[in-house]
Amino acid sequence: MTQSSALAAIYNRRSIREFSAEPVSLEQLREIIKAGSWAPSGLNNQPWRFVSVIDHSLKSAIAEQTKYQHIIQAAPALICVYIDCNAIYNKVKDYQATGACIQNMLLATETLALGAVWLGEILNNKEEVNRLLKLSEQYELMAVIAIGHPAHHKQTSTRKDLNELILNQL
Amino acid sequence: MTQSSALAAIYNRRSIREFSAEPVSLEQLREIIKAGSWAPSGLNNQPWRFVSVIDHSLKSAIAEQTKYQHIIQAAPALICVYIDCNAIYNKVKDYQATGACIQNMLLATETLALGAVWLGEILNNKEEVNRLLKLSEQYELMAVIAIGHPAHHKQTSTRKDLNELILNQL
Repeated sequence: MTQSSALAAIYNRRSIREFSAEPVSLEQLREIIKAGSWAPSGLNNQPWRFVSVIDHSLKSAIAEQTKYQHIIQAAPALICVYIDCNAIYNKVKDYQATGACIQNMLLATETLALGAVWLGEILNNKEEVNRLLKLSEQYELMAVIAIGHPAHHKQTSTRKDLNELILNQL
Repeated sequence: MTQSSALAAIYNRRSIREFSAEPVSLEQLREIIKAGSWAPSGLNNQPWRFVSVIDHSLKSAIAEQTKYQHIIQAAPALICVYIDCNAIYNKVKDYQATGACIQNMLLATETLALGAVWLGEILNNKEEVNRLLKLSEQYELMAVIAIGHPAHHKQTSTRKDLNELILNQL
């Protein structure tokens, strides 16, 4: 049962917002993206596309597009997750698939002893992020994932009780 | 590095559409739902809700709502994944969060040596599924996950080459 620790990764993962100065390698970023790409999608349409960013000045320019600027500034790497509008077949299902893809990437960072946080507020300025990344409107920003080595492991989180979430068992 | 097998679960997971007659326990269904609930969501709003179904006649009635009827008939258990419309804060982000939740559930089934498939086509008849489950329109069906013990392990799948998916490394 070598896969039992997938549950450990699911339960231990926390949103990491503070990072050490240690860089993230291109190999690590590609492994994280590969994990994302193995998410399921409707009709296996794989609508996700990725831009990784480690360039310091570009990262700073992207940071200015969100009120969580300090998190992007502190993270040594970003993965900008896009949807290819030409690949869309059903918006609700494609947004869900993108969420599944992002969750795989977050679990992969946990597996690689890295930390990450899923940033969504930056979507308020998605057109500006596209301009910085020289991407046409064929690509719609879905999230920015800030990645690095966790500065500490003090993060806690909570979830609603299962009995609140389960409406019925039939 | 006990978590390295989260990657194995991500890469080995396949959509399972044929099941043995062996049942799935309520404990297993609750563990799968618990894994789903530990997905991240915007502002930790946890918009997901769940109905698990093992009752044979109810399962048959749900099966009639999709052209993939035979899959639901063959699966000993279903988890119907809902979004609570009263908990929504941003539709795109809430659909993404629900996708992350579903992916956690699929990885949990893999971990428990079960198999599952994410069914989306049934959303075409989501009002009828609500009627069968006696749920008001406060709850919007997001997916039905069919779960059981895999009848075999012959499933294969493919993904686009990473170099097609990575638009740029900057």
